[in-house]
Amino acid sequence: MTTDRAPIEFWFDFSCPYAYLASTQRRRLAAESGREVALRPFLLGGVFAALGQAQNLSATLSPPKARHNRNDVVRWASWFEVPIATPRIHPNRTVDALRALLACPPEAWSAMVDACFAAYWVHQRNLADRAVIADLVHGLGLDANAVIARSQGEAVKAELRVRTDAALAAGVFGAPAFVVDGELFWGQDRLPLVVAAAKGWQVRPELRLFQF
Amino acid sequence: MTTDRAPIEFWFDFSCPYAYLASTQRRRLAAESGREVALRPFLLGGVFAALGQAQNLSATLSPPKARHNRNDVVRWASWFEVPIATPRIHPNRTVDALRALLACPPEAWSAMVDACFAAYWVHQRNLADRAVIADLVHGLGLDANAVIARSQGEAVKAELRVRTDAALAAGVFGAPAFVVDGELFWGQDRLPLVVAAAKGWQVRPELRLFQF
Repeated sequence: MTTDRAPIEFWFDFSCPYAYLASTQRRRLAAESGREVALRPFLLGGVFAALGQAQNLSATLSPPKARHNRNDVVRWASWFEVPIATPRIHPNRTVDALRALLACPPEAWSAMVDACFAAYWVHQRNLADRAVIADLVHGLGLDANAVIARSQGEAVKAELRVRTDAALAAGVFGAPAFVVDGELFWGQDRLPLVVAAAKGWQVRPELRLFQF
Repeated sequence: MTTDRAPIEFWFDFSCPYAYLASTQRRRLAAESGREVALRPFLLGGVFAALGQAQNLSATLSPPKARHNRNDVVRWASWFEVPIATPRIHPNRTVDALRALLACPPEAWSAMVDACFAAYWVHQRNLADRAVIADLVHGLGLDANAVIARSQGEAVKAELRVRTDAALAAGVFGAPAFVVDGELFWGQDRLPLVVAAAKGWQVRPELRLFQF
């Protein structure tokens, strides 16, 4: 495998609507870029804490910025032609869902990611509720009791911490983020640039001197 | 003139690199949307003060977010195939340049906007310096002394305050912003949505209930 065939890393937590929106475009991203999209779950709250940021960014916005944000989310849902509905609880605790994802066998990850995002952002379910998580796992045809039990073990808890540290090491400061050959792109609105970068497009070298 | 033929409003100050980047796409936006792009200068610092925001947003970012921002600016410059260079002074006082723009005759506005953005973001000139501003006005073939004198008069000062209040009334909280038939879009990264909205694309009505 050559470097330029490395997968595109998709860094996400379930708690961000933009991460949900980006996730709906994973398959299109893979198709358009000709690269695999590797799932990189991490705990967004852990990254925010490490960077000293507010845990709920949307609560820090001025009223007109918050209004734009709300309009913006539904515009992107319309743009991508995907459903979205107001969560009953937001922001919501996602650590158990992320651990359950890690406890699923690798071949079930993609379906579990879809199920968790849909539960939070489409079906208005409480993703902090272990019964809901168990139901999602069961819906994938897996042994929910076994997965939930494994998800609460020390190995999975440690793995989520390691993955969150890896997010920080990769320069991740929010979700969704994409990494293409070591270059980080933040936001579903950067997808055209991510596709282009994955196909070899590069910043003009002289511009790399830009600082501000 | 029917409502759907109203111009796209382009709200800007010279002090933001993303506003510069958006400005380079004005003519393409008009061509692709089939609408006029109306220039809406305002004082970004006045809007930030009114909203209680930090005057220099880039100074409030965490190190990885600041690094992404820097990379992001040069990516967009490459994407739009336009030049950009690190300003010698940033953020810089733009109130005199904005007033000089207002003091120019309407037929010179578009060229003056280009000249001011290029001075700040390409040619590393000090846009807070009245001699630089006079030179830009002169370069448009105008009487620089007369324009600069008019730009310091009470009428122009009042007009900039009125325009900044109008920005706030339109829901503007940052630059660049675009308004299409009363709908505000923030950022050069929303240009595909702006073009689509100008051509009649709309958010699916059921999504308008979304809140968070």
